[in-house]
Amino acid sequence: MARLRRHRFVPFLVLPLAAAGPDPSAPVILALAVIYLVALLAGELSVRLGQPAVLGELLAGVALGNLGLLGFGGLDFIKTEPGVDLLARIGVLILLFEVGVESTVRQMLSVGTRALAAALLGVVTPFALGWLVGWWWLPDAGPFVHAFIAATLTATSVGITARVLKDLGTSQSAEAKIIVGAAVIDDVLGLVVLAVVTGVIAAANTGTAMGYGAMGLVVVKSVGFLVAATVIGVWLAPRVVARSARLRTKGAALAVSLVLCFVTAYLAYQIGLAAIIGAFAAGLVLESAHYSPYTSRGDQSIEDLLHPLVQAFVPVFFVLMGMRTDLSSFADLGVLGLAGVLSVAAIIGKLSSGLGAGAAVNRWAVGIGMVPRGEVGLIFANIGLGLSIGGVAVISPTLYSAIVVMVIVTTMITPPALKWAFGRRPA
Amino acid sequence: MARLRRHRFVPFLVLPLAAAGPDPSAPVILALAVIYLVALLAGELSVRLGQPAVLGELLAGVALGNLGLLGFGGLDFIKTEPGVDLLARIGVLILLFEVGVESTVRQMLSVGTRALAAALLGVVTPFALGWLVGWWWLPDAGPFVHAFIAATLTATSVGITARVLKDLGTSQSAEAKIIVGAAVIDDVLGLVVLAVVTGVIAAANTGTAMGYGAMGLVVVKSVGFLVAATVIGVWLAPRVVARSARLRTKGAALAVSLVLCFVTAYLAYQIGLAAIIGAFAAGLVLESAHYSPYTSRGDQSIEDLLHPLVQAFVPVFFVLMGMRTDLSSFADLGVLGLAGVLSVAAIIGKLSSGLGAGAAVNRWAVGIGMVPRGEVGLIFANIGLGLSIGGVAVISPTLYSAIVVMVIVTTMITPPALKWAFGRRPA
Repeated sequence: MARLRRHRFVPFLVLPLAAAGPDPSAPVILALAVIYLVALLAGELSVRLGQPAVLGELLAGVALGNLGLLGFGGLDFIKTEPGVDLLARIGVLILLFEVGVESTVRQMLSVGTRALAAALLGVVTPFALGWLVGWWWLPDAGPFVHAFIAATLTATSVGITARVLKDLGTSQSAEAKIIVGAAVIDDVLGLVVLAVVTGVIAAANTGTAMGYGAMGLVVVKSVGFLVAATVIGVWLAPRVVARSARLRTKGAALAVSLVLCFVTAYLAYQIGLAAIIGAFAAGLVLESAHYSPYTSRGDQSIEDLLHPLVQAFVPVFFVLMGMRTDLSSFADLGVLGLAGVLSVAAIIGKLSSGLGAGAAVNRWAVGIGMVPRGEVGLIFANIGLGLSIGGVAVISPTLYSAIVVMVIVTTMITPPALKWAFGRRPA
Repeated sequence: MARLRRHRFVPFLVLPLAAAGPDPSAPVILALAVIYLVALLAGELSVRLGQPAVLGELLAGVALGNLGLLGFGGLDFIKTEPGVDLLARIGVLILLFEVGVESTVRQMLSVGTRALAAALLGVVTPFALGWLVGWWWLPDAGPFVHAFIAATLTATSVGITARVLKDLGTSQSAEAKIIVGAAVIDDVLGLVVLAVVTGVIAAANTGTAMGYGAMGLVVVKSVGFLVAATVIGVWLAPRVVARSARLRTKGAALAVSLVLCFVTAYLAYQIGLAAIIGAFAAGLVLESAHYSPYTSRGDQSIEDLLHPLVQAFVPVFFVLMGMRTDLSSFADLGVLGLAGVLSVAAIIGKLSSGLGAGAAVNRWAVGIGMVPRGEVGLIFANIGLGLSIGGVAVISPTLYSAIVVMVIVTTMITPPALKWAFGRRPA
């Protein structure tokens, strides 16, 4: 049974162990132990200070990831270990799936108009503000750069908010439904904005024009996928789950649910949406009630089955997100000024979402819930690094660093701010 | 929120998306969906045919992995996808941890002598038979090759058996404790055998002698680790769990358990043992009773918490193990003859373990439970591929293929044979 390596008594042999030799999971196992321990302790501290546990996980991640500044880089491998990255990505997938399972299609439709209004305001306002910031701060950069800066401010990253809502016990609130619904719509809008901006820049370089047909195709594909997934899912999912309950194999409930989750996530990715949108859509069409053939015979509920998976995967995402925060980005004053202005534009821009949510709900909570940009701003910025106009990169290294700081600020500010907002009652 | 890539409307741009671009988890998500679906259907078929579900998972894996022979290789990426490999490894870790949690130190000590006898017989007999096979089938190869063939037959791979015992509902039996205990001891003995054989070959090449001190060190380190992990764990684990129950963070029970599991697994790996031995040791010192502060307030039991993790990870291991079975190994008649003789030696050798288990238990079950070689035989063989004497590889390609077939045969034969053995009652 031994996975045999490191035979120190035969060091003069070079053993070509290939895949069968050293256990490639060993660093991941170490990383997981560190992550769980740190997440548990920092989460606890955070909860005792009256904050959501996820804030503790993020900040502990930041501390852990920047130990290198104090001369201890022994855990830096975690930041770039592909296995940890994979578990983090599966984590946010399962988190959004769970959020979906806890929501029903009916609930989402009941907030549909308000979510749409919140999403539109939350894309248009930060885009306008971002353009303004670019025009004011980098006047010589030209309209393409301004447009790109504006685009990086548009897309919400819903993972943080979803987790904070769970930590606060408010994931069943109308605000939560609006935020998640708006974030899904945001994802489609974000695709369109990026498509247009990159298309226009490309067209400017080559002298060709960006076709409206191509832009329309992005919209049709994305919206079409979401509608199809929901319509087919509402019909199919309960039938698949009910059929699975007739199997003699133990634990079919979880297996079937994960298959639905992962298939839809993969299809969403293939369409060009984020995989987590598919995971959410799969969860949305699944309801606890569908699992009654299981629970009525004493099996665990789907929530009880998903809960340990959420616990095992999700902290990896948040601690890793913290670890990848490079505090040295904050050291450059030139970067910091631009970052400050960008962050203000990003926050005010998304707070406007709250206005679209209607007077019946806590508008602050909705607006704040839309604030985090997470990875998505970085993805936009990365694309900008690779685009150039007349040989000059659209996103300069300074601008990139400023965007990184903006992402950090919007992510870190959300847990305490959302906690504060839910402390107030709706008007 | 979009993870944006594949902008087909800007194909003339090369976007250096780096880590932020294409979602590297996408193929893993697809692989997981396929694996869960196939495992569920094949497991169900297997159960309906009166066999353990794991046999269905293995055979479905074999079918899936050899679709390439029929011209469909679209899923072959799963075999080599590092993310899937990682999840499989974590899966067998969690499986052994769960087996450990379901066992107590007292139970293991009560079968200690019989497990030791079973392990010793299960190492000595296959070693002797393996040597005999080598001497008979490859008379010109010399004693080093014979010794190496013998060594590849020694180590039990307990994952299959642990899973079959669970499928059969016999994981609480005395036979199960003896098998798992013997497999742990086997791991230590396997280390020693390999150390001695490779050391002797190396010494023959360089003219130096293999020190008894180095061999002794392997034994002392391995046994010392197991004793220390158990003694410290029995004292520490209940205290850590009880302390964690006082935290306000939800779900500390699972987090703390996984930390203990992964830390011990990592330490075991560092010592030179398989990580799963550490996971088992961590589970062994943890008992359901330690979690009473949690369960008494209505939290999920540790078994209920581990169950979904086992379901999410473990099928990946078995389907992947099946997929990596290359059926074309069976096509070479020259290989098949040697493979057949090796397999017989491997099976009879391990059946002798049953004799050590004492008359009070089902000896067939114990002997059969020790039969699977799984990955371990392959690891030994891989090391042999890299060793040479006077410039000739210790393990030739033909011999390697024969060992692969032996591993397949011992693995596939175990689920139905164990089912048969438990159908008989102990003498």
